Amino acid sequence: MELIKTLSRESSTKIILLVIDGLGGLPGPETGKTELENASTPNLDALAKKSICGLQDPVRPGITPGSAPGHLALFGYDPVQCLIGRGVLEATGIDFDLEKNDVASRGNFCTIDSEGLVTDRRAGRITTGKCEELCELLSMSIEGVDVIVRPVKDHRFIAVFRGEGLSAEVTESDPQKLGVAPLKVEGMLANAERTAGIINRFIENAALILKDHYPANMALLRGFAKLPALPSMNEIYKLTPAAIASYPMYRGLSKLAGMDVLPTGTRLEDEIATLEQNYENYDFFFLHVKATDAAGEDGDFDRKVKAIEEFDSLLPSVMKLNPDVVVVTGDHSTPATIEGHSWHSVPVLIYSKWCRTDSVSSFSESACISGGLGRISGKDIMPLAMANALKLTKFGA
Amino acid sequence: MELIKTLSRESSTKIILLVIDGLGGLPGPETGKTELENASTPNLDALAKKSICGLQDPVRPGITPGSAPGHLALFGYDPVQCLIGRGVLEATGIDFDLEKNDVASRGNFCTIDSEGLVTDRRAGRITTGKCEELCELLSMSIEGVDVIVRPVKDHRFIAVFRGEGLSAEVTESDPQKLGVAPLKVEGMLANAERTAGIINRFIENAALILKDHYPANMALLRGFAKLPALPSMNEIYKLTPAAIASYPMYRGLSKLAGMDVLPTGTRLEDEIATLEQNYENYDFFFLHVKATDAAGEDGDFDRKVKAIEEFDSLLPSVMKLNPDVVVVTGDHSTPATIEGHSWHSVPVLIYSKWCRTDSVSSFSESACISGGLGRISGKDIMPLAMANALKLTKFGA
Repeated sequence: MELIKTLSRESSTKIILLVIDGLGGLPGPETGKTELENASTPNLDALAKKSICGLQDPVRPGITPGSAPGHLALFGYDPVQCLIGRGVLEATGIDFDLEKNDVASRGNFCTIDSEGLVTDRRAGRITTGKCEELCELLSMSIEGVDVIVRPVKDHRFIAVFRGEGLSAEVTESDPQKLGVAPLKVEGMLANAERTAGIINRFIENAALILKDHYPANMALLRGFAKLPALPSMNEIYKLTPAAIASYPMYRGLSKLAGMDVLPTGTRLEDEIATLEQNYENYDFFFLHVKATDAAGEDGDFDRKVKAIEEFDSLLPSVMKLNPDVVVVTGDHSTPATIEGHSWHSVPVLIYSKWCRTDSVSSFSESACISGGLGRISGKDIMPLAMANALKLTKFGA
Repeated sequence: MELIKTLSRESSTKIILLVIDGLGGLPGPETGKTELENASTPNLDALAKKSICGLQDPVRPGITPGSAPGHLALFGYDPVQCLIGRGVLEATGIDFDLEKNDVASRGNFCTIDSEGLVTDRRAGRITTGKCEELCELLSMSIEGVDVIVRPVKDHRFIAVFRGEGLSAEVTESDPQKLGVAPLKVEGMLANAERTAGIINRFIENAALILKDHYPANMALLRGFAKLPALPSMNEIYKLTPAAIASYPMYRGLSKLAGMDVLPTGTRLEDEIATLEQNYENYDFFFLHVKATDAAGEDGDFDRKVKAIEEFDSLLPSVMKLNPDVVVVTGDHSTPATIEGHSWHSVPVLIYSKWCRTDSVSSFSESACISGGLGRISGKDIMPLAMANALKLTKFGA
């Protein structure tokens, strides 16, 4: 990345990165073909013919990526080095606007018995409505530090500590098992002791406030973290990057990478319209397609096929913009048969005037094996896109 | 590299590394095939059938290598870690024999106005003849340090400072823009201040000497550097290596890697004759083919095809020596359509009795995609060549 930073240069060419979430799949029992192979994708296939294709491992071979590492790799960061704390990720996932010195944490409402021992770490999975109600009771201020509590889903919430001189180097209160009391939070560094004290005060106050809200009569906190200090995509690539994503987590990740996050609607065609409307203002676009991953997670093979076909039908609108470089890939595989993310390598195509095409004539897991890119690492995709956009100068004389 | 060093052993087997400079290409508009695919290469194709083939990235995917990093990778060094300073590279490029403690720099003759501000960083691109004449005037000795000034081409020259206790940790005098005065050179470390003072004295003297040589009435220096401390190929591989190259830069790079540089002629057949004559005396040969890159840089597709065909016609002479391992590849791609180096991966074949052949039956970008090597890094080639020569022992018990 330091190397890329010294070689990158501004230019008028434009790159579009199309991320079909959970794109990769596995053969369905009926057809013996993957979701992508089952889908009718005339536009992707035509694009593959004009592109260089391959398979990519977002993190490392064998590693099943979460959404954050999968996307960070596609943005060119090493996902193993650029760890994002759980608290920050949860905050990002509900579009919460973290500030530079905030300490964010992931919270669970839980149940404790009369002796203060945890009997249910999820408080019987209370409704999101109940969670919202309780969160409103918990916002408070301690020694000049604002504690902002926001619902996530069911029993999950975030607690963000905002104030001067806070540290995220503290232990967790969530014991992660039953039959024991919540843990006292401790500073892991000398300068984190004040923060630990404030967090403990918050937890004590929360216990009093929640006392009569059985089963949600206590709160557990973990994953204390600050925003990571990622160099922005503008610093690294000298790009003016924009993100188009309808889901909060992907907007948040884009913001961490320094992208402008464009307002858009909830449907894929809204995202494409946003791309069209803003095309002149940026030279890099990340556009996120969510429906594929959601269908894969639900184990709904046919719905994932349909989601891929919907994307395919909208691809011509993207190509009509005449971008210099188009990348199509996923942040990881989500095979419907696995009902979750998986480690399988993900098809990728890079289209440009200079891409050196290969013999791949359809975009699929099996066809991409014989692509000219071979098997690459997810974080190699940005340098390749930059090279194809003629935005990298020569290294060495 | 530390690993290879512990595993390498001397043996009687011989390795020949044939580097076809700028080998990789892109499809030409007329045929839709690359230079290599257009060329008639019966001997390379026959060798590919007996070899293991693949594609290699000399530096990293997406990175366009200069000649120095491209070759260092092929010699087994990590080109991102083994940086060679500009001054050293320029000296290397004119076959100048740098000594261990020399500080070399790249110079430009330039034009300054009556107020001493730079008005042309290239002095109207004076002729090489004029450059030679001026360089002769500038050689001098300051406080026991010899300043050796040699012409490169047009307005370019090198200034080498030779003496005790010199440091390359100094700033540049070239402001790299117009309308400002040349910069005073400063030491970046305490022990570099004396060197900076000597360089400034040289520049002051040069200004006086050049005063009446408008437009070349001043000199700018940059890229101060000493020879890099590369471990030699003998230290790493226990090889007795020799280089056969008609162009100075490649001879210089070979010397940096500790090879014996054999005198040879300017034509490819001279190089092959040198190989034949010295075959008994070494166990590793690097032979450099320049014409392909020159044609690619000139955008001359057909001339690059012809240069590849010329190499192919001479390949049987190499094979007649019955070497144990033959590697054919390039230091980077130079597609004629790009008229310069590019990031595209480069075909590579490794021939040996033990190579495990694949199904590749012609040597080309498209055929090598399905080769048994897959897509590898340039610096992996030397360990593979060493292994095929049975010169690496087992790692671990």
